[in-house]
Amino acid sequence: MSKSTEPGHNLAFFDAERSADVVNARMGPDISPRFREIMTIIVSHLHAAVKEAALTTEEWMAGIEFLTKTGQMCSDWRQEFILLSDVLGVSMLVDALNHHRPEGSTENTVLGPFYVAGAPHYELGANICLDGKGEPLVVRGRVTDTDGNPVPGAVVDVWATNDDGFYDVQQKGIQPDHNLRGVFIADSNGEYWFRTVKPRFYPIPDDGTVGKLLASLGRHPNRAAHLHFIVKAPGYDTVVTHIFTPDCQYLGEDAVFGVKDSLIADFRQVDEPVEAGELGFSTPFWKVDWNFVLARSEDVRMNEPGGFMPGKPSSNGGE
Amino acid sequence: MSKSTEPGHNLAFFDAERSADVVNARMGPDISPRFREIMTIIVSHLHAAVKEAALTTEEWMAGIEFLTKTGQMCSDWRQEFILLSDVLGVSMLVDALNHHRPEGSTENTVLGPFYVAGAPHYELGANICLDGKGEPLVVRGRVTDTDGNPVPGAVVDVWATNDDGFYDVQQKGIQPDHNLRGVFIADSNGEYWFRTVKPRFYPIPDDGTVGKLLASLGRHPNRAAHLHFIVKAPGYDTVVTHIFTPDCQYLGEDAVFGVKDSLIADFRQVDEPVEAGELGFSTPFWKVDWNFVLARSEDVRMNEPGGFMPGKPSSNGGE
Ligand SMILES: [Fe+2]
Ligand SMILES: [Fe+2]
Repeated sequence: MSKSTEPGHNLAFFDAERSADVVNARMGPDISPRFREIMTIIVSHLHAAVKEAALTTEEWMAGIEFLTKTGQMCSDWRQEFILLSDVLGVSMLVDALNHHRPEGSTENTVLGPFYVAGAPHYELGANICLDGKGEPLVVRGRVTDTDGNPVPGAVVDVWATNDDGFYDVQQKGIQPDHNLRGVFIADSNGEYWFRTVKPRFYPIPDDGTVGKLLASLGRHPNRAAHLHFIVKAPGYDTVVTHIFTPDCQYLGEDAVFGVKDSLIADFRQVDEPVEAGELGFSTPFWKVDWNFVLARSEDVRMNEPGGFMPGKPSSNGGE
Repeated sequence: MSKSTEPGHNLAFFDAERSADVVNARMGPDISPRFREIMTIIVSHLHAAVKEAALTTEEWMAGIEFLTKTGQMCSDWRQEFILLSDVLGVSMLVDALNHHRPEGSTENTVLGPFYVAGAPHYELGANICLDGKGEPLVVRGRVTDTDGNPVPGAVVDVWATNDDGFYDVQQKGIQPDHNLRGVFIADSNGEYWFRTVKPRFYPIPDDGTVGKLLASLGRHPNRAAHLHFIVKAPGYDTVVTHIFTPDCQYLGEDAVFGVKDSLIADFRQVDEPVEAGELGFSTPFWKVDWNFVLARSEDVRMNEPGGFMPGKPSSNGGE
């Protein structure tokens, strides 16, 4: 006879059938209701996954070792668990759950691990490519609100890899400091422009546990070619976004699922000697026109816990 | 217009509604089918949990930090992720999924982090309590097969905390080496006996992330008082188990869910001066009779991936 298999027992003892209930019943009465909700959901799905997979002891131990090594890879300059979240699509999902912007405003995508606050402020038109590598590109556009009104003074913070596929902070002492980084301020018409080089694909750091996981999954570590942007202005919801080149071979298989249709820009290769001369470029060079549409803070529905339902409009609803 | 919201699109781009499908569709064609199965299940439950909880960005980041610190707590002598698995009931669940022993055989429970291979071999009757602390206890019993036949030569490996609630390996230099550890060999009748002290409850290591988690969950870190055993013999499935005292205040709330009805033993306090004298004990002292029933290896159904179904008999079905 076993108390733990009597109907209606008090869940004191472990019971494989009701294992998540047993664990969740152990929570104290006075804890944060939100923490109780989150942990109940996590424990339930964790137990359901272990049962559905019917994990063997060896597989469970392999999971323990994976998580342990992933934590041990983390340092002040390396966050392997965020990388894991990225390649499993969780970072994009959390972003989608937390930014319900009004129709027509620029969509978010992943921040990535290489943002550096405090990049140099430049005059409009400056060239942020300091190492001279790559195919020259000029980026021009406007920052507006969702009604099309300019947002003068909007801050446009941009960063990218160099043409070798590395961020400056990955190659300190090799690249010039702040290579491919800069902060621009939109003018009185909300217009901005700057010079750089056409972005190229690059691999996320793949020398750790996440790289091994990707290999085991038959996946490559490459991100579709992109420029990173953070665009902000007082009273508007800050947008963390990318623009993608349309011709990258990895556009449909970005390692972190960061691509959205609305973020693919029209990069045009042009052969205009006069304009090239004015820009200080040789020919041919690349041009892209790109506008940012900021949503007023009060128009952005931030995440309400429990508020996500399948079928509800989400931030990647397209435009 | 957005490709990612067209029905039947190719899952190349992130889509909050179908996020787990998008991630799982990215797996390569030539990977291990079992790894594909496991990762599909994990990704599906991970995304479902994030959606159900509607995690905010801050909550997601708190989770990343928790996992990172948990990995960073791990060392050669500390395994915080196993501790996490233990307090979330996952270790007991994996054990239940992997040991389908025939009715009547001794049930498994958690191994715990303090097993040390190579403890001293003692003659039957030896006292493994080397520090003289605690209430004396004699443990006697038989090792049999499921038909009641003795298993002569069965190896009975026992370990426990001292009366201060610490294992010897947690207090090197304070406790005598190998305190409360010993290996005994059952005699020709399958009988074994040894002397020790009555076990007491003790906290699992709670100075790390798991200790903080337990506190946030309104849970204490204490394990119900127990003796650990590994019992093995050639041809039989090795059993990793405990015996619990019936009078421990934490019996119904063991921090790692290790208690099973069938593992609670009848510890009797006795006041028999003659027997005490023979045992070298003062009065009163404690006695417990405990038999181990080993299942033949061929009678134990090990885990078959995908084989666990709610409603199927599991290893904690009681006896
Ligand atoms: Fe990037
Ligand atoms: Fe223990």
